[in-house]
Amino acid sequence: MKHYLIGIDLGGTSCKFGLFDRLGRLHDKWNIPTNREENGRFILGDISDSLMNKLKEKEISLIEIDGIGLGVPGPVTGDCFVSLCANLGWRNKQVKEELEALIECPVKVANDANLAALGEMWQGSASGYQDLVMITLGTGVGGSVIVKGQMISGSFGAAGEIGHMSIVSDETKTCGCGKRGCLEQAASATGIMKEVKRLLEQEDIPSLLRNYDKITAKQILDAAKKGDGVAMQALERACRYLGTAMACITAILDPQIYLLGGGVALAGQIVIDLVKKHYDTKVMNTSKTTEIKLATLGNDAGIYGAAYFIANLS
Amino acid sequence: MKHYLIGIDLGGTSCKFGLFDRLGRLHDKWNIPTNREENGRFILGDISDSLMNKLKEKEISLIEIDGIGLGVPGPVTGDCFVSLCANLGWRNKQVKEELEALIECPVKVANDANLAALGEMWQGSASGYQDLVMITLGTGVGGSVIVKGQMISGSFGAAGEIGHMSIVSDETKTCGCGKRGCLEQAASATGIMKEVKRLLEQEDIPSLLRNYDKITAKQILDAAKKGDGVAMQALERACRYLGTAMACITAILDPQIYLLGGGVALAGQIVIDLVKKHYDTKVMNTSKTTEIKLATLGNDAGIYGAAYFIANLS
Repeated sequence: MKHYLIGIDLGGTSCKFGLFDRLGRLHDKWNIPTNREENGRFILGDISDSLMNKLKEKEISLIEIDGIGLGVPGPVTGDCFVSLCANLGWRNKQVKEELEALIECPVKVANDANLAALGEMWQGSASGYQDLVMITLGTGVGGSVIVKGQMISGSFGAAGEIGHMSIVSDETKTCGCGKRGCLEQAASATGIMKEVKRLLEQEDIPSLLRNYDKITAKQILDAAKKGDGVAMQALERACRYLGTAMACITAILDPQIYLLGGGVALAGQIVIDLVKKHYDTKVMNTSKTTEIKLATLGNDAGIYGAAYFIANLS
Repeated sequence: MKHYLIGIDLGGTSCKFGLFDRLGRLHDKWNIPTNREENGRFILGDISDSLMNKLKEKEISLIEIDGIGLGVPGPVTGDCFVSLCANLGWRNKQVKEELEALIECPVKVANDANLAALGEMWQGSASGYQDLVMITLGTGVGGSVIVKGQMISGSFGAAGEIGHMSIVSDETKTCGCGKRGCLEQAASATGIMKEVKRLLEQEDIPSLLRNYDKITAKQILDAAKKGDGVAMQALERACRYLGTAMACITAILDPQIYLLGGGVALAGQIVIDLVKKHYDTKVMNTSKTTEIKLATLGNDAGIYGAAYFIANLS
């Protein structure tokens, strides 16, 4: 009998599935759209249907599936309970019990960002490390913390919410979370775009970006790599706050390695270099050599992490 | 045969010993001065001599001692190695091996502040909790982090160095660590005294403190409790930065409880109330009900924690 693991990364627009073996090899992956109608009440049924169809197609028996790991875009407490998941419309949902009732197979549920870090630890750029912090720089700033090989969820499921560290002292606007000065406001793609817009309007710096009608994050990152003044200034500001936040994290946890992922990190080495420069000015001397690397699994990190999580390999 | 544990808290001026049983009862405690001469080369011999004398006095055989936990005032890596301990004059010292060679008994070594939190978890105000952060507000600001019941040392032994979180955006002076803007600069007794001095010199606020020639931290805290304007303003600033730092810690670890200890926390409920007020304005809504309590073991926390650590009860 074969042993497979299912890793599922459930997002607000689509739900990604991965079929793995216990050695971390990905045998198949596929997506379905997320149906958010009626407070997301069809989502778990859709997941169950899609999975059962796939197993039939591949002639895999349910008994060969060791378990299903599921990542959801919101806080999850230790017992797989989701109190609120705005992107899916879920509230006070016993996700594990409901999915186990649909598919007769063990299920474990965790926050999607936290699982991404486990995935990178299993098969990505943190392979071989046990203490890591991953920071995902996308529309927002997400994070996840692994201590001694174990994912940290926190007492209210809010661990790893690094984007909401209160760190941007010169912020004047309110964050989506209702506070002001969150890291996410400066270091997300959205934050960088806002800063570029401000610089283009208020400063007289020459910039390639003045040629575009609507500026995307990718255009900004490409311009920064070419040395564009405005793009560099906005990216440097983001990396200054990110480096400061990471130095604070080191003063708390002193991890072995930081991984940067998400759209902003796609700019590559320039982001690592800028973050490291500012990290070095803020971190204690003992920890100046902490590794800072790019995440490598990209959008697949979540399904890898979910599969690893259910495998109980940690 | 009885089973005892020895907890030792080694400081720069004195070394405190505790004789415990496995239930956490303290049967005896005593001190010896710390001899820092010749880079602290006599310290471990003095510890061994004092302990052997005590066992003889109490008619306890060495075989009844399950082990010795030792807290040192500096970073310790996972293998009980001390790379630098300025207060003792130690550098690159295999403390465990050396002490085990002097006393034939298992030894474990850890950072003193980290052990204090373990002590509070065992027999103090965090009894029953598994995820906690303790912050000690004294001459400096120390900290310690317990995750899932285990003390976190960090990859360079620098975890829990909460005093060196880069958080005080309006700081103009350099911290002892060489950086600027460390939490310790605002929230330590030293930081509060500096702010009082600045306020008395630069502001025209009426204050009881103007009657003293040389102002102590205790006088400031007593004055704050009486509502003195200058004392309150300085204490409020300290607690604002401390609350902000704690909100950042929650965004990373989301612990169950914070414990405040050290001289500043002796002011009691006023410190808890001020910290909570600022924590609430900076923390995510999910985690507004995190407990914030005073530590209760005082200067004994270190010996309790060292004993618990060697007992391997976690």
